[in-house]
Amino acid sequence: MSGFDDWMKTVQAASEADLSSYLPSANVVPTKLHEAMRYALLGGGKRVRPLLVYAAGALFGADSGVLSRAAAAVEMIHAYSLVHDDMPCMDDDELRRGKPTVHVAYDEATALLVGDALQSQAFLVLSEAGDAIPAARLVSMLRLLAHASGSAGMCGGQAIDLDSVGQSLTLEQLEQMHQLKTGALLRASVLLGATAGKELTEAETAALHTYSRAIGLAFQVVDDVLDATADSATLGKTAGKDAADNKPTYVSILGLEPSRALAQQLRLDAHKALEPFGEKALRLRELADLIVQRKA
Amino acid sequence: MSGFDDWMKTVQAASEADLSSYLPSANVVPTKLHEAMRYALLGGGKRVRPLLVYAAGALFGADSGVLSRAAAAVEMIHAYSLVHDDMPCMDDDELRRGKPTVHVAYDEATALLVGDALQSQAFLVLSEAGDAIPAARLVSMLRLLAHASGSAGMCGGQAIDLDSVGQSLTLEQLEQMHQLKTGALLRASVLLGATAGKELTEAETAALHTYSRAIGLAFQVVDDVLDATADSATLGKTAGKDAADNKPTYVSILGLEPSRALAQQLRLDAHKALEPFGEKALRLRELADLIVQRKA
Repeated sequence: MSGFDDWMKTVQAASEADLSSYLPSANVVPTKLHEAMRYALLGGGKRVRPLLVYAAGALFGADSGVLSRAAAAVEMIHAYSLVHDDMPCMDDDELRRGKPTVHVAYDEATALLVGDALQSQAFLVLSEAGDAIPAARLVSMLRLLAHASGSAGMCGGQAIDLDSVGQSLTLEQLEQMHQLKTGALLRASVLLGATAGKELTEAETAALHTYSRAIGLAFQVVDDVLDATADSATLGKTAGKDAADNKPTYVSILGLEPSRALAQQLRLDAHKALEPFGEKALRLRELADLIVQRKA
Repeated sequence: MSGFDDWMKTVQAASEADLSSYLPSANVVPTKLHEAMRYALLGGGKRVRPLLVYAAGALFGADSGVLSRAAAAVEMIHAYSLVHDDMPCMDDDELRRGKPTVHVAYDEATALLVGDALQSQAFLVLSEAGDAIPAARLVSMLRLLAHASGSAGMCGGQAIDLDSVGQSLTLEQLEQMHQLKTGALLRASVLLGATAGKELTEAETAALHTYSRAIGLAFQVVDDVLDATADSATLGKTAGKDAADNKPTYVSILGLEPSRALAQQLRLDAHKALEPFGEKALRLRELADLIVQRKA
């Protein structure tokens, strides 16, 4: 097992334990809501965002407790967005990470509240980072997370996605949609991890933006390739869904092989953006590789 | 026109203008989402929470810019909760503040995203309060807001409310539900306004908790009385809904006249809790009166 695999498994296990500790117990009233929040958040997921937080945290030696909270916060935002995205009025999906989606396992009203409460919990967990980081820097992190989550970020991307069903998007429009829908939170993960270590200079911010843009797009291109080529059992969610829903994808616009080539190019772009950070960017480089080479 | 009415109209007008300025323009992409967010938030509402923020801000001379952001943030949380609460999978309401609800005026997917994005926007607006307040105090305010919004606050109360439909609740269970569902955000409004002025002592916090508990319960008792006695046109929402939905209310448990007497008692409790603050608590006292005496 390589160093990267060990590191990844360690972060994933720590994230799982941290996420569990940052959620109310399923014995606490309202018990059904808390049980459903835990169902939505725990026991699955690749934890790509926590991995990015920790990898970026290594750039400037961030405090591990602050990273733990930042990683949990972005993962809670991600998890809430999946719960809402799966609901009948959105994508109407019944399978997620190989399990029934929240509105199927519970009911729609509970799924709605689970998402709402997970978003609040994300801000709560990050706001409780305490004295391990100067308060002004913590405010910056909370602002970053809010900006990436809202209408200028993830929610905005989902709105554009909704409006795009059945439309023929240009490559630029498709990229803009994904830069908001998934890219904003991936970028926030990188910036949160780095900011946990120090206030970033403009040059550092710009380099991390370039890196994040590349891996964000690569993530989506690979998602589209997998949706077109893998089966549901491997993905842990319904495959072939984009084509069935007549959604524009990189594969439908560029074709399969050019999409694969684009993902490889983006991987190299990501590596190049990290050059100023030297050896401390090792995990960020490896994560770019993982995002492009993943099979699910 | 009394001083209180003037003050109230001034705060309501300022809140309306501030809320508009803290939301992206309807011309900004994604335009439909931004237009729907503005539809949900602007042009209506009694602005009880902003009034509480400003009234509590007067206790310790808080900066008006910080109060403006805190008031907008709680109102955004309140507005998002109404949008989600009105959806078909929750209360399935078609009328709110005399207008079609968001999922009726737009569609369910948009209503879901409007609520999600308004919650993010609340944390964003508050996190941008800048140098007018020490960062550590701003973190405390963000934490207060997150705690009041999530599963230990408003979302938790809604979950208990959902589970209580068709059940016979005791008075204590009904009170607990409302203390979370509406009380948590009213209390947060008071504490946010006061904390914007200074770090609170334990005694100050305790007194404001007592005040908030009293007005929070009074607010709900009066809501139940109005739902049972007023018409839809006066309320700007569907009247008689609680009885039709077989929801437990103060009126159904205590009866109409005892409910009115309870509201008056809670008004006096609220006044008493404010005694230590003297004349600076004038607006908070007047708001307690307003909450009990309102007709809609």
